[in-house]
Amino acid sequence: MPSPSSTQEFMVFHGTVIHSLSPSDLEINENAVVVVNVATGKIVLMERKVDKLNEFLSGLSLLENKQYNVNVLKKDQFILPGFIDTHAHAPQFSYAATGMDLPLLDWLDTYTFPKEAEYAESEHAQNVYSKVVDRFLSCGTTTCSWFATIHLEASKILTDVIEEKGQRAYIGKVNMDQNSPDYYIEKTESSVSDTRTFIEYVQAKNNELLTPIITPRFAISCTSPLLKALGDLAKEYQVPIQSHLCENVAEIEFTQSLFPNSVNYTAVYDDHGLLNDKTIMAHCVHMTEDELKLIKEREAGVSHCPNSNFNLQSGVADIRHYLDLDIKCSLGTDVAGGFATSILDAMRSAFTASNTIGILKSQYGNRSPKPYKALDAKELIYLATLGGAKVVGMEDKIGNFKVGKDFDALVVDASDNGPVRLFRHDGAWETLQKFLFTGDERCLSHVYVRGRRVAGWKQ
Amino acid sequence: MPSPSSTQEFMVFHGTVIHSLSPSDLEINENAVVVVNVATGKIVLMERKVDKLNEFLSGLSLLENKQYNVNVLKKDQFILPGFIDTHAHAPQFSYAATGMDLPLLDWLDTYTFPKEAEYAESEHAQNVYSKVVDRFLSCGTTTCSWFATIHLEASKILTDVIEEKGQRAYIGKVNMDQNSPDYYIEKTESSVSDTRTFIEYVQAKNNELLTPIITPRFAISCTSPLLKALGDLAKEYQVPIQSHLCENVAEIEFTQSLFPNSVNYTAVYDDHGLLNDKTIMAHCVHMTEDELKLIKEREAGVSHCPNSNFNLQSGVADIRHYLDLDIKCSLGTDVAGGFATSILDAMRSAFTASNTIGILKSQYGNRSPKPYKALDAKELIYLATLGGAKVVGMEDKIGNFKVGKDFDALVVDASDNGPVRLFRHDGAWETLQKFLFTGDERCLSHVYVRGRRVAGWKQ
Ligand SMILES: [Zn+2]
Ligand SMILES: [Zn+2]
Repeated sequence: MPSPSSTQEFMVFHGTVIHSLSPSDLEINENAVVVVNVATGKIVLMERKVDKLNEFLSGLSLLENKQYNVNVLKKDQFILPGFIDTHAHAPQFSYAATGMDLPLLDWLDTYTFPKEAEYAESEHAQNVYSKVVDRFLSCGTTTCSWFATIHLEASKILTDVIEEKGQRAYIGKVNMDQNSPDYYIEKTESSVSDTRTFIEYVQAKNNELLTPIITPRFAISCTSPLLKALGDLAKEYQVPIQSHLCENVAEIEFTQSLFPNSVNYTAVYDDHGLLNDKTIMAHCVHMTEDELKLIKEREAGVSHCPNSNFNLQSGVADIRHYLDLDIKCSLGTDVAGGFATSILDAMRSAFTASNTIGILKSQYGNRSPKPYKALDAKELIYLATLGGAKVVGMEDKIGNFKVGKDFDALVVDASDNGPVRLFRHDGAWETLQKFLFTGDERCLSHVYVRGRRVAGWKQ
Repeated sequence: MPSPSSTQEFMVFHGTVIHSLSPSDLEINENAVVVVNVATGKIVLMERKVDKLNEFLSGLSLLENKQYNVNVLKKDQFILPGFIDTHAHAPQFSYAATGMDLPLLDWLDTYTFPKEAEYAESEHAQNVYSKVVDRFLSCGTTTCSWFATIHLEASKILTDVIEEKGQRAYIGKVNMDQNSPDYYIEKTESSVSDTRTFIEYVQAKNNELLTPIITPRFAISCTSPLLKALGDLAKEYQVPIQSHLCENVAEIEFTQSLFPNSVNYTAVYDDHGLLNDKTIMAHCVHMTEDELKLIKEREAGVSHCPNSNFNLQSGVADIRHYLDLDIKCSLGTDVAGGFATSILDAMRSAFTASNTIGILKSQYGNRSPKPYKALDAKELIYLATLGGAKVVGMEDKIGNFKVGKDFDALVVDASDNGPVRLFRHDGAWETLQKFLFTGDERCLSHVYVRGRRVAGWKQ
């Protein structure tokens, strides 16, 4: 399964194809055929059950007189939609997995702000951004919503790196004009004008894979005039918005003291035109029912970042509850609040977080008569793929293998070459679970974005 | 750094050597020398600061006229003591990472017992045991305390496999004579006699690395006469003991109803001669202060299995509290209650569990004025190495690099070839943290047990 040659018009895959149709509906098709148009990167055919491949292909008028290759998946292989990380900080990769001994606000002052300030230096940005995008792609993250830093130049560098490597991405220049250290803060006006310049820089590339995103760090670090101006920019350029919301208790209390005219933290963003169906809010750990209602009404999406929430002792978000309320939910690594770059790890951490809610409910709160049902493997896959697609507003384009969508996909190989071990009786469902809980990037033999191979463990 | 050749008498390592002296005292020696006697596998010299290596070596009478090789570690490499897993179920590896949707007692009935019953078949045992021991060694677990099944033959097979592969191990034939399914239960007498036969089988090997361990599954599955007989066997053969304790609330209630004459669950083991300084108790999630006092008095050790405790919604053990009480603590993967085979993962899960205690204390219990200090990287390394050595009663033999101990060690390579990414300013301490939180077996270029290379990613 190499990258298609220049003369090749279609890629055909035959074997186990797994994707989500809804949180609880995971389709495992063991003899499926997927056909991808190489020029457009789009899925042009998906047939769920094909026993006689040659017979089937020769009957397809679509492929008549066309150049195509056929990739027959082995027993331990399957195809999965590419992973979607809806919240990660590219600059923080340089210190990920170190210094995780402080709660949020102290952690920002002690580790994050000094490290992010280093991105005034372009060479450093080029080096770290190149490594972090490579790493994310190799882990199967075909779409990512990135925070850069406040620096215009470094944000452009991040965009260039992502473009070169072929990831689908939202990229945000961060805005901060208050409650930030002297060495890492902007003037309100230059923050707005740099953001405008950055939006135009990304949009001028005319690359369908790249989208600028309005990125106020969080309400604490932005004045009301800045937030208002950013809301206006989002509207003017029709671009999405991302920020942090209700991550920890001290942050919420501080925010409410800064914005006494808003009824709650979520309303701060809403009151400044920053909460709509193109908004991604990271964390959402401590949400009142009123806030959840507002999120739902605005059709904003939640990026659940459990690894980070544990590390910083922020708390545990009850994603089961949010899904029950039909709020759009997805997963974020939140590098470097989270130490792990892989959405596989985010799925495992989300499982742990969900089990923690169960532990809390049964032992520390009102003892429920039936045990809490933690997010299961089906739901975790959904959050990592179709759920992510909804949160980034691209469910018509990515997230599963419906005909007409782009082929953002992972060819997973769970054979003994990697960390997974299969035994007799392990079918596709067990193989998927073993990949989810014990696999890593060594299992990703091919990573495709819009039909183009962008990474993969196998040569 | 290949395995020593037959003529070689000493191995010399020069570079960063990291090991624990106590939970809070982690020694990072950046220019250390360690000398290992190949014949005995013992550390014969450790010098903390050697700048001029050749000068130092030529001045050593120990090496005069001796054959030795010198292994100079690179900047991103360091040596760490081998990991010690104090609780794992070898047979459960076949289904690890599947079926994690039930609490303990239902999980045992639905998944565990049917799968363990399959080990009546020797070929299956040989296949799974070979793969699981390989996997654990490649993950750097140089010492493991294993549960097998109730089957005598399969337990012997596990022993043979471990001997061949060179791991240091406690191996236990499991005992179950009540509250177990018809297809997976023993008669009391044969349970005792098979255990005696198994102990003698292991001891007859006269292999210092292999020790039989008395292994009542847990009090629920053993009658009082069986527990009593096992306590007598432990005394007669001077062998260690392992079991499960206070894992979840339903299990505790059931145990207390079965043993009304014991004051609490911990006392059940104590009352049958099974709680002493050679005892390893897995989980210990829900312990009363009385039970902790008893554990401490008997000098028994705790195997903390956080991955499993989350998955089965068992609860969260407060290891910080146990360490404060000076109770011996260590880490267990508890495969397959835990889905991960690596002690690196157990360290991460222990970090998550400790942070969860912090979250519970600050938000759901009495709001403490200062944040809970989660277990830090130093303490996690301690639990995985020296803490484990104490729990298995081998602190005079393994756990760190004191002269006279066996060389059970990992050569860690955190360079870009594996999953870890280092940047400027990353010193040995940051490299260690990045390995701990983002590394995996690809970072273990060499794994040694008593000076013999038993695994390693590099050829
Ligand atoms: Zn964040
Ligand atoms: Zn266990």
